[in-house]
Amino acid sequence: MGEIHRFGIATDSKLLENFDRLIEQKGYSNRSEALRYLIRASLIDVKWEDGEEDVVGTVTLVYNHHDRDLSDKLADHQHVYHNQIISALHVHLDAHNCLEVLVIRGRAWEIKKIADELIGAKGVTHGKLVKTATGKD
Amino acid sequence: MGEIHRFGIATDSKLLENFDRLIEQKGYSNRSEALRYLIRASLIDVKWEDGEEDVVGTVTLVYNHHDRDLSDKLADHQHVYHNQIISALHVHLDAHNCLEVLVIRGRAWEIKKIADELIGAKGVTHGKLVKTATGKD
Amino acid sequence: MGEIHRFGIATDSKLLENFDRLIEQKGYSNRSEALRYLIRASLIDVKWEDGEEDVVGTVTLVYNHHDRDLSDKLADHQHVYHNQIISALHVHLDAHNCLEVLVIRGRAWEIKKIADELIGAKGVTHGKLVKTATGKD
Amino acid sequence: MGEIHRFGIATDSKLLENFDRLIEQKGYSNRSEALRYLIRASLIDVKWEDGEEDVVGTVTLVYNHHDRDLSDKLADHQHVYHNQIISALHVHLDAHNCLEVLVIRGRAWEIKKIADELIGAKGVTHGKLVKTATGKD
Repeated sequence: MGEIHRFGIATDSKLLENFDRLIEQKGYSNRSEALRYLIRASLIDVKWEDGEEDVVGTVTLVYNHHDRDLSDKLADHQHVYHNQIISALHVHLDAHNCLEVLVIRGRAWEIKKIADELIGAKGVTHGKLVKTATGKD
Repeated sequence: MGEIHRFGIATDSKLLENFDRLIEQKGYSNRSEALRYLIRASLIDVKWEDGEEDVVGTVTLVYNHHDRDLSDKLADHQHVYHNQIISALHVHLDAHNCLEVLVIRGRAWEIKKIADELIGAKGVTHGKLVKTATGKD
Repeated sequence: MGEIHRFGIATDSKLLENFDRLIEQKGYSNRSEALRYLIRASLIDVKWEDGEEDVVGTVTLVYNHHDRDLSDKLADHQHVYHNQIISALHVHLDAHNCLEVLVIRGRAWEIKKIADELIGAKGVTHGKLVKTATGKD
Repeated sequence: MGEIHRFGIATDSKLLENFDRLIEQKGYSNRSEALRYLIRASLIDVKWEDGEEDVVGTVTLVYNHHDRDLSDKLADHQHVYHNQIISALHVHLDAHNCLEVLVIRGRAWEIKKIADELIGAKGVTHGKLVKTATGKD
């Protein structure tokens, strides 16, 4: 994590008042924490734009498990990309529908490609990629 | 704007280093300015979720101007909502296609409704709402 | 799923050509499948706006596991909302950082509230909510 | 626009029923129109990812007009990029705050760069880029 730095920020009182209300509403414990959160989120966007950085993503898939080809295809994909796909969580939504979340680590462009392939697989009814980071900085 | 407040923020040096790089890349003039920008953006999201706040939106529409019904319809809409639609900019993209940007002010739910009607109008090939604020805080 | 309906769609050839290229690139098996996917995605957006519908979300959290308070807090949250939080996946990113994905089911406003509380918890360095659906329609 | 093609799409009745409700709510005149809209929106996303395509964007900026440096800077920017920035609309939100919308045409990466510079300019309190297309396909 490195050492801790302190620096000052200047803002007009109206903005600060509104920000304090947001902090309370969102449950942050103080201004520093809320600001660090905003800083990290803006850095993550830039990392993913760049493409070559080591990042983490989660892919949420909803699909019908009666579709045998799909289950096989998803399993195949996960084996092809076993270096990137770290882990998976499977939830039975009802008698027909499943939700699967995969945690993928690698370079941004790689994760996007894997996510596209998974979300585009025949039988997947909805899919979404979350772009996050390794927490290292 | 009210008076200026100063307060301190604590962060580990790695995060700060990365943030300073982002500030340079995005062209902010200093940390205070970049942080104020992030604070404002997070406040705007909350205002729009609330629905009842006085906010500003811009709606970008792309459409084919040969469609007479559409031009009439867009003009009609703008008159019905003349209290909310402040101004419009029209650009001729080529012999067939137009882009129009409307600036709309009102309560969040109202602007969303107007934007939905405009974007859903027959002949509009693409449309998008930008959620912003009045700049007052 | 109900019976299958067929209906026609008319589009100019240029748009269709570009769409066919997108279908290939994204790996959809045919136009029907790609269109069903787009239809579903647009329905999910509306469900979440409404707030009262039964939907599913996944929350991705990155945090530092040395923060004991946080681990306790996250566990507490998950117990308070055990009716909504169906399942959780935990990944160790490195010696310090964890990633956790929670699958949450309930009404849209409820899931948003739970997600806000989790993402806002002190020590969470990044968090994101994916809005998806139960797959029922 | 080219000639018109017709093709069939198969979907289960429940999905179609929900889609018809969405069509009514959003004001589309029929299924073909709603589907063409969804197809176009998905193509626009891909174009912008690619970076080298000819696209159109609109940038919405909110700022305080008392900041002389900013007005000058925005004007300067617009002259440097006069080949890309086609047109601008200026609205006085109140005695202090202005909203400006710029229509920018060029390659995706170029527009992103110009938007970043404008949104990052000192004094801009909020800014957003809308990614749209020329309407040609």
